[in-house]
Amino acid sequence: MISHESLATGRDVSASLYVEIQQFYGRHMRAMDECRVEVWTSDFTEDAVFATNARPEPQIGRTVIAEGARKAAQLLTEQGDRRRHCVGTLEVSERPDGTVVAKSYAQLVRTPQEGETVLELFCTCEDVLIREEGRLFIKHRQVYRDDLPEN
Amino acid sequence: MISHESLATGRDVSASLYVEIQQFYGRHMRAMDECRVEVWTSDFTEDAVFATNARPEPQIGRTVIAEGARKAAQLLTEQGDRRRHCVGTLEVSERPDGTVVAKSYAQLVRTPQEGETVLELFCTCEDVLIREEGRLFIKHRQVYRDDLPEN
Amino acid sequence: MISHESLATGRDVSASLYVEIQQFYGRHMRAMDECRVEVWTSDFTEDAVFATNARPEPQIGRTVIAEGARKAAQLLTEQGDRRRHCVGTLEVSERPDGTVVAKSYAQLVRTPQEGETVLELFCTCEDVLIREEGRLFIKHRQVYRDDLPEN
Repeated sequence: MISHESLATGRDVSASLYVEIQQFYGRHMRAMDECRVEVWTSDFTEDAVFATNARPEPQIGRTVIAEGARKAAQLLTEQGDRRRHCVGTLEVSERPDGTVVAKSYAQLVRTPQEGETVLELFCTCEDVLIREEGRLFIKHRQVYRDDLPEN
Repeated sequence: MISHESLATGRDVSASLYVEIQQFYGRHMRAMDECRVEVWTSDFTEDAVFATNARPEPQIGRTVIAEGARKAAQLLTEQGDRRRHCVGTLEVSERPDGTVVAKSYAQLVRTPQEGETVLELFCTCEDVLIREEGRLFIKHRQVYRDDLPEN
Repeated sequence: MISHESLATGRDVSASLYVEIQQFYGRHMRAMDECRVEVWTSDFTEDAVFATNARPEPQIGRTVIAEGARKAAQLLTEQGDRRRHCVGTLEVSERPDGTVVAKSYAQLVRTPQEGETVLELFCTCEDVLIREEGRLFIKHRQVYRDDLPEN
């Protein structure tokens, strides 16, 4: 059980787990930003749920999530824009059942071809991660864009 | 004593302390951004000092700091804006007396209700943290906004 | 040898190495942003190479890199602007030969004297770091600005 004290200090999460998640996001976000959709998609469990206030219904299952990501990557490639997910302000906690909750902030930074870089939008992300065969996978993702209503 | 060598490499600070401080800021900044002022305020010592070049005099004591934070949160709620502290570029050192100095960069990102997200301002933050009953508290905070004169 | 599995999870890199590199960048970027060019420069090996798509040819050797940095710092001081490198989304890997590859994102945030803060530009950075006498040095840096063509 996680005590109030450990929740307050975050000391219950080991440095190696916290760093593992930083590495996970480094790789995960870079994969998306470089349009390596297969790599990005492989970070989700087969039955993962991706919910966001930018869509009326959550995407359910890795196949559906992958389809959405491929379309987004294709659009970005057609536009010739670069888009980066600058992820940070990470807060990690472990649940009694062994799943990991990772809260992060993401600034989306877009640069049109030889154009000026702009902060396109901001979102919060809350992932529930599970470990399978030694590595972490996203089982549930909840993203909120700050520029859209919560529901 | 901290040697020149260890200052240069930052190896004197353990991974667990560095991660503890990342967790601390994750929780601390999220509390502020979600207007959970009591949680944010509880990260300061009773006698904490909060100095910034945005105010002529430092705030002295947790009660005074809390009052300022409540007003800021109320204003934000009234405006219906969302404001996020994206904290990073963290550098941590330990002093011989056991206090911890944490330097960070913070980008303040504001999104008006259904409006466009903007980078509102940038500030540097230098906190002196002490450990009491197992957890860290801010004893002294010095914030500089880059858009204002230093004094 | 680094297995596919360990590449996927990033678990091959210890928490202490990852944190050491976060500390390295905290110090390194702060040195540049505060125009302490000597400190910044001392993070490069004598024979370091600094390549970027903002220059037709790479800078070769610490002396040349230092000269470029001094000019940039002087220009910034003359303009009276503040410029910050907000570094993050870090991904670290170790090569079999012991060198370390660190990939990061950097948002450059500029604030003219008493003016408004703007996101000036975005770049990706890939450093090859080596350890000498206990501390890390940059042996090769490749920076890409997103607003310029790749070559």
